[in-house]
Amino acid sequence: MTVKLVVVGGGSSYTPEIIEGIIRRHDSFPVTDIVLVDIEAGKEKLEIIGNLAQRMIEKSNKPINLSWTLDRREALKQADFVSTQIRVGGLAARSKDERIPLSHGFIGQETNGAGGIFKAFRTIPVLLDLAKDVHEICPNAWIINFTNPAGIVTEALLKHSPHKKVIGVCNIPYNMRHSTAEILDADPNDVLIEFIGMNHFVFGKKVYVNGIDRTKEVLEKLSGDLDYSPANIVNLGWSKTFIEATGLLPNPYHQYYFQTKEVLEKDVKAFKENGTRAEVVQNLETSLFNIYSNPSLYEKPKELEERGGAFYSDVACSLMDSIYNNKQDVQTVNTINNGAIPDLPEDAVIEVNCMITNNGPKPISVGALPHTVKGHIYQMKAFEELVIRASISGDYNDAYTAMVMNPLLANEKGSKVVLDELLEAHKSYLPQFKSRGN
Amino acid sequence: MTVKLVVVGGGSSYTPEIIEGIIRRHDSFPVTDIVLVDIEAGKEKLEIIGNLAQRMIEKSNKPINLSWTLDRREALKQADFVSTQIRVGGLAARSKDERIPLSHGFIGQETNGAGGIFKAFRTIPVLLDLAKDVHEICPNAWIINFTNPAGIVTEALLKHSPHKKVIGVCNIPYNMRHSTAEILDADPNDVLIEFIGMNHFVFGKKVYVNGIDRTKEVLEKLSGDLDYSPANIVNLGWSKTFIEATGLLPNPYHQYYFQTKEVLEKDVKAFKENGTRAEVVQNLETSLFNIYSNPSLYEKPKELEERGGAFYSDVACSLMDSIYNNKQDVQTVNTINNGAIPDLPEDAVIEVNCMITNNGPKPISVGALPHTVKGHIYQMKAFEELVIRASISGDYNDAYTAMVMNPLLANEKGSKVVLDELLEAHKSYLPQFKSRGN
Amino acid sequence: MTVKLVVVGGGSSYTPEIIEGIIRRHDSFPVTDIVLVDIEAGKEKLEIIGNLAQRMIEKSNKPINLSWTLDRREALKQADFVSTQIRVGGLAARSKDERIPLSHGFIGQETNGAGGIFKAFRTIPVLLDLAKDVHEICPNAWIINFTNPAGIVTEALLKHSPHKKVIGVCNIPYNMRHSTAEILDADPNDVLIEFIGMNHFVFGKKVYVNGIDRTKEVLEKLSGDLDYSPANIVNLGWSKTFIEATGLLPNPYHQYYFQTKEVLEKDVKAFKENGTRAEVVQNLETSLFNIYSNPSLYEKPKELEERGGAFYSDVACSLMDSIYNNKQDVQTVNTINNGAIPDLPEDAVIEVNCMITNNGPKPISVGALPHTVKGHIYQMKAFEELVIRASISGDYNDAYTAMVMNPLLANEKGSKVVLDELLEAHKSYLPQFKSRGN
Amino acid sequence: MTVKLVVVGGGSSYTPEIIEGIIRRHDSFPVTDIVLVDIEAGKEKLEIIGNLAQRMIEKSNKPINLSWTLDRREALKQADFVSTQIRVGGLAARSKDERIPLSHGFIGQETNGAGGIFKAFRTIPVLLDLAKDVHEICPNAWIINFTNPAGIVTEALLKHSPHKKVIGVCNIPYNMRHSTAEILDADPNDVLIEFIGMNHFVFGKKVYVNGIDRTKEVLEKLSGDLDYSPANIVNLGWSKTFIEATGLLPNPYHQYYFQTKEVLEKDVKAFKENGTRAEVVQNLETSLFNIYSNPSLYEKPKELEERGGAFYSDVACSLMDSIYNNKQDVQTVNTINNGAIPDLPEDAVIEVNCMITNNGPKPISVGALPHTVKGHIYQMKAFEELVIRASISGDYNDAYTAMVMNPLLANEKGSKVVLDELLEAHKSYLPQFKSRGN
Repeated sequence: MTVKLVVVGGGSSYTPEIIEGIIRRHDSFPVTDIVLVDIEAGKEKLEIIGNLAQRMIEKSNKPINLSWTLDRREALKQADFVSTQIRVGGLAARSKDERIPLSHGFIGQETNGAGGIFKAFRTIPVLLDLAKDVHEICPNAWIINFTNPAGIVTEALLKHSPHKKVIGVCNIPYNMRHSTAEILDADPNDVLIEFIGMNHFVFGKKVYVNGIDRTKEVLEKLSGDLDYSPANIVNLGWSKTFIEATGLLPNPYHQYYFQTKEVLEKDVKAFKENGTRAEVVQNLETSLFNIYSNPSLYEKPKELEERGGAFYSDVACSLMDSIYNNKQDVQTVNTINNGAIPDLPEDAVIEVNCMITNNGPKPISVGALPHTVKGHIYQMKAFEELVIRASISGDYNDAYTAMVMNPLLANEKGSKVVLDELLEAHKSYLPQFKSRGN
Repeated sequence: MTVKLVVVGGGSSYTPEIIEGIIRRHDSFPVTDIVLVDIEAGKEKLEIIGNLAQRMIEKSNKPINLSWTLDRREALKQADFVSTQIRVGGLAARSKDERIPLSHGFIGQETNGAGGIFKAFRTIPVLLDLAKDVHEICPNAWIINFTNPAGIVTEALLKHSPHKKVIGVCNIPYNMRHSTAEILDADPNDVLIEFIGMNHFVFGKKVYVNGIDRTKEVLEKLSGDLDYSPANIVNLGWSKTFIEATGLLPNPYHQYYFQTKEVLEKDVKAFKENGTRAEVVQNLETSLFNIYSNPSLYEKPKELEERGGAFYSDVACSLMDSIYNNKQDVQTVNTINNGAIPDLPEDAVIEVNCMITNNGPKPISVGALPHTVKGHIYQMKAFEELVIRASISGDYNDAYTAMVMNPLLANEKGSKVVLDELLEAHKSYLPQFKSRGN
Repeated sequence: MTVKLVVVGGGSSYTPEIIEGIIRRHDSFPVTDIVLVDIEAGKEKLEIIGNLAQRMIEKSNKPINLSWTLDRREALKQADFVSTQIRVGGLAARSKDERIPLSHGFIGQETNGAGGIFKAFRTIPVLLDLAKDVHEICPNAWIINFTNPAGIVTEALLKHSPHKKVIGVCNIPYNMRHSTAEILDADPNDVLIEFIGMNHFVFGKKVYVNGIDRTKEVLEKLSGDLDYSPANIVNLGWSKTFIEATGLLPNPYHQYYFQTKEVLEKDVKAFKENGTRAEVVQNLETSLFNIYSNPSLYEKPKELEERGGAFYSDVACSLMDSIYNNKQDVQTVNTINNGAIPDLPEDAVIEVNCMITNNGPKPISVGALPHTVKGHIYQMKAFEELVIRASISGDYNDAYTAMVMNPLLANEKGSKVVLDELLEAHKSYLPQFKSRGN
Repeated sequence: MTVKLVVVGGGSSYTPEIIEGIIRRHDSFPVTDIVLVDIEAGKEKLEIIGNLAQRMIEKSNKPINLSWTLDRREALKQADFVSTQIRVGGLAARSKDERIPLSHGFIGQETNGAGGIFKAFRTIPVLLDLAKDVHEICPNAWIINFTNPAGIVTEALLKHSPHKKVIGVCNIPYNMRHSTAEILDADPNDVLIEFIGMNHFVFGKKVYVNGIDRTKEVLEKLSGDLDYSPANIVNLGWSKTFIEATGLLPNPYHQYYFQTKEVLEKDVKAFKENGTRAEVVQNLETSLFNIYSNPSLYEKPKELEERGGAFYSDVACSLMDSIYNNKQDVQTVNTINNGAIPDLPEDAVIEVNCMITNNGPKPISVGALPHTVKGHIYQMKAFEELVIRASISGDYNDAYTAMVMNPLLANEKGSKVVLDELLEAHKSYLPQFKSRGN
């Protein structure tokens, strides 16, 4: 019996982490075949990653067949798991997602605001195409999506692709759990956070350690300068009042919504000094690939952890392990609501604790949204629907509505200016958008 | 048989309009008794208004008994209708509601943002007290509330008072109908707008003239410089893109949410030049009362129309007429949702077309919220619930949550600064708020 | 300008009532053209009705062009209103709907239980076909459906036909209003009943006379032998306990659900003595057509009122009049819920008070279902969905589910026996049902 | 550290099973103290059970302190778990619950129809009283309710008692899982059934073995004479058509609803031959207690399995074990819906797979009710609400509504007759019912 994993976007700098995760879990989750797939433009990086991965596997002595290719359809044959970690347009596109909104006084960020909207616009058609291939070539395979904006992309796939075995993952819940464990001086494996909301807009509602409710303690310790951000965003900390009044654990991305002015000032300053975050990352990437190219490197280098997405792949490997073994353990993933949050649409994708089985994640009911944030969560979900609608329709008005209804853009004229510039800047990656509005 | 109307806040400069409305409808709606009620602080104005109203009635030759008093409980005896048009703290309080947020870079406005929240905080306890009296003294009377924020206040009364015969009215739907009629060169009586949303956040979804759907025509004509604002807010106009993409008629207050930056600049400039809107209105009021004092004035003077609330009283008189006569005609009022918009809570107060009967308004089903604005409408309704909660509880955290969850304030630190200053500024009108937070 | 009405099933014995209604309303609702349409099998009756209608019009001196034809598509050209009053399979089919269930100890009735299910199975495909023609030939026409089961048929059309201008009517709300007026010694025009539920399962929740709530009085007077049935069902009366405990006005069809045993005994007895109700009606029809054939008859004969459907056409004429004149008055029709009853699906058809405009009926919100009957109403609606599903799919299992989930059939084996016999008996009218189960 | 279990209704013949379950799990779930509590009338049985339990514990060599008492409040001190297995009125009352409905041609059964309603009427006030004591004396204790009708009783406690740590258990899901395992020749521990519905009206929607969906296979094998009933009800088997058309696994109690006529005939026959089931059970009980009294009996005798409730206690012990150890495993219990089935009220109690933690059961989302049974499930839930309402209010009309809205009683007059007789028969156990209707 074989267990085959196809890594779409295999030339990504994150791949060594996923290889390491697979090696580490090999006793319980015996992957036999890994194929790294990428596109022509990523050929060179794919080669570097492929060779590093090969060295890592050799050193591990695990019986894993590794190959890499540009032929996606060929790679998908008999796949059991397909992980997706792509970046349509690369860091150059991300740089525009950041630069253009910032230049008009709006948050310019990879997954939030205008940047996140355009990342979705570029990504959704490509992944719908992949899902079509998967459905045709390896219909039993699970797609484990960690391409951002992970929640929106997962909802788009589940609503608009025939392939229904799609799960989205993110490292934010993982990071929140680990930071919370640190705060409480507990083992992360003993910590269970009850999450409520969507990817990058998720809150922690309850924190249990071995089933004991320690939420209050966490909230008290949380206010102040504590930082439990992923490396890619620097957290400004939260005031005692905000934490106490909402009664919830925010996630680091909430700063964009509740500290907009301060973040914007900081980001504009950073932009002026160092360029966009994409450009910073570009440098990081260059040096990472230099390290990766070293033929005497046989393991995931420490430097990778400085990239924001650390632990993404670990989360994905854990998930695949639990699916494969029908573990029925609890993991936090992006999947269809199905009533777990009764205030949100049943077919919405939410980020939620699930029991993981080999027929997929089964959400554990969360109950009604807390009154303090229910308006915002509902609004963000409605906004996400607008983004998906526009990603599919390619309609200018749909795109405009998604922009103007996003709380970080909510300006009649400004939204249009940013929209028009981004549509122009990314036009080669947005074939679905025909008209440019009026 | 008597028909008795009690005007709470009878010393208001709007009262002559209501008197005129009662006189004009006397044949079909034969009010026999009017009592104007006010508080000690408004005694002088009440005297002026009382005398003017007396002259108006005399000139009309209608058999209406008029009196004025500071004894509210006495006035309420045998009342059939109780209209409320109060301003707790007067224009001086309004001035603070405008000045303080503006000074911190937030919208400072009578019914939106921080100003609207504090108007609610001051008003709700006072009107709950009135409703208790009404319920005890004249349990069959209808309270016709046109005290702002009218939607929030009406919801607070319907949720927290034993008296359930409460209807909120506003002149915005009236103005939208009249402006739309003008655009279409139609008789306002032939125009029916299907409204969706809440007071001051209501949209027009469909425009019918004699039952013919002319929405598209209105939307096309609407984009540009067209102005259908009440006098108290100057409209910046809407772009073709916004109108076309949402597919809805915005109301003038929407500019605060979708043109925030521009409105703020304009308002800050106006504030620097002329002080707050409250101060402008104060001057208007002074000159109005000068006019009212003229013993040879026997009618509502034209100058009143320059005040923003024109037609409020007309809307109220129409409503009372239809209730009295069980007219079963269609009017737009603020009442309990009851499923008319199935996405919103059943017990929420919405602004909706109703069939008016003498057992109250019966909402006409609107159906699901349009996808373009459903997130925003839901969020604003959740925000309104937070305001009501804080108005009743007097809890600092509740107040903070209402502030930070309002889209015009959504800033963790800024919300607190504005909240603390306003709590201090209005403390004599906010007995329910004991603590001042941390 | 012309106003054209097409009466589908024009050879029905009810047609003289509709002709009379049109003549009577001619001043306000000036119908210019009436075409009676029927199928080959109804040719002879159509001829009789056509001639009678012609004599009625001539006597009235109204400028109405009348014609009759078997060519439906020709008739539909330029139609403004299309009324439907068909009986697929005629009274012979109805007789089987009644006889077969009765022979197995189940209620055998035209619109309830197995009979109603099969009437739906036969009718829905035929009316979907009509709706397709209407949509193609006269897309602005309103279909006024009074073919039973009127609620289910209307929901099927609104869900599965491209034509969305469909309204269902029934004489039960009319009869309840008139009987209630009689009980209260009031003018029926002053009585407003707040209805809740679906066609033939509707309850009266509140009774207002000129807006005064007189529900309690009606409920008290209602318990006992009072009869407000249509002629086609004899009411057994309701006990004081039932009326008081539910707090609602039942409709005559509720006896099938809450007096099943007694009704069944009575019906079996009647069946043994006089055959099925269909056979009784067949005799009535024969004698009615004898009367209609009399060339000196110039008006609707009194004998028609003995048929159960009296006032159906009057309800339909009132409705068309209000649509034509955009009257915005209140009528009780079958239309899409749209939140009026928030517990039921938004796209369900309910029987509800509506404001009638020339762009259709706008339901007046009813609010949550009363706790006493909410389970039953919800269940009946879910059952109706099963009937529609089976009518369209022609799937045996779907049909079985509709049967066994109907409270009058709820027997695993009995449902199958009755289903199989009825499928066989009606097979020429059920082309959609291919297989016969197992 | 102590772990104390209080068994309310300790004199029940089921108690030896719970003692055995505690002994067997002692290594992982080290109960230190057990107190058996009963009422004066059960004193003699309590003595017999206490002595047997003592012998069982002695033989096991586990360090468990056992005692028995009639002083409930004393017993509750420092309790961690309180299990409830009471029968208000004893088997004599049950006999009336069975005999009276049967004598009028209705199903007479312990937990369904009129019998179940009256069991609820008698039980709910007594358990509310217990819950009040628990909340006061041992507020951290979990109440594990296996008193029938377990779902209704649990909902009543969760809605009307201050104590929110209440879980209902039943052996039906356990039996269905075991029978299904047998059908599939699988280990019951590998079988997971996705349940949907409420206690005694639950369906199996999906059957997984080690995560593999084998529902279809089970459904195919299920039709026919297969029996997976608890001992207390003899199953008539299900037809291929019913199973195939609903696509669901029924539970044995569904025969009352879908095979009413046949079950009634069988039950009436059995009643005539052997008296009520209660009387049969009474004999069983007598002989069980004879066996229990044997001082050389040191274990749960086999004969207990012939009683219908076998495995109830096992289910309860498993549950307590998982709570104690925060196992996060999946068990099927009765708990608050919280959105797991979005069509049912959020605060309804459903029977649902839950992740069991030491802060209680967390339901795993089930999603929308299947269209085939959604009407029935919703109706039964609405009926359960009526039962709870009447249990609390003691209002005659409420009781009548609960009766007439139950599908097994749905007869206007018959419901009243049965209601009146049962109210009279049980009056000493129904202090809340003051009036007897009209």
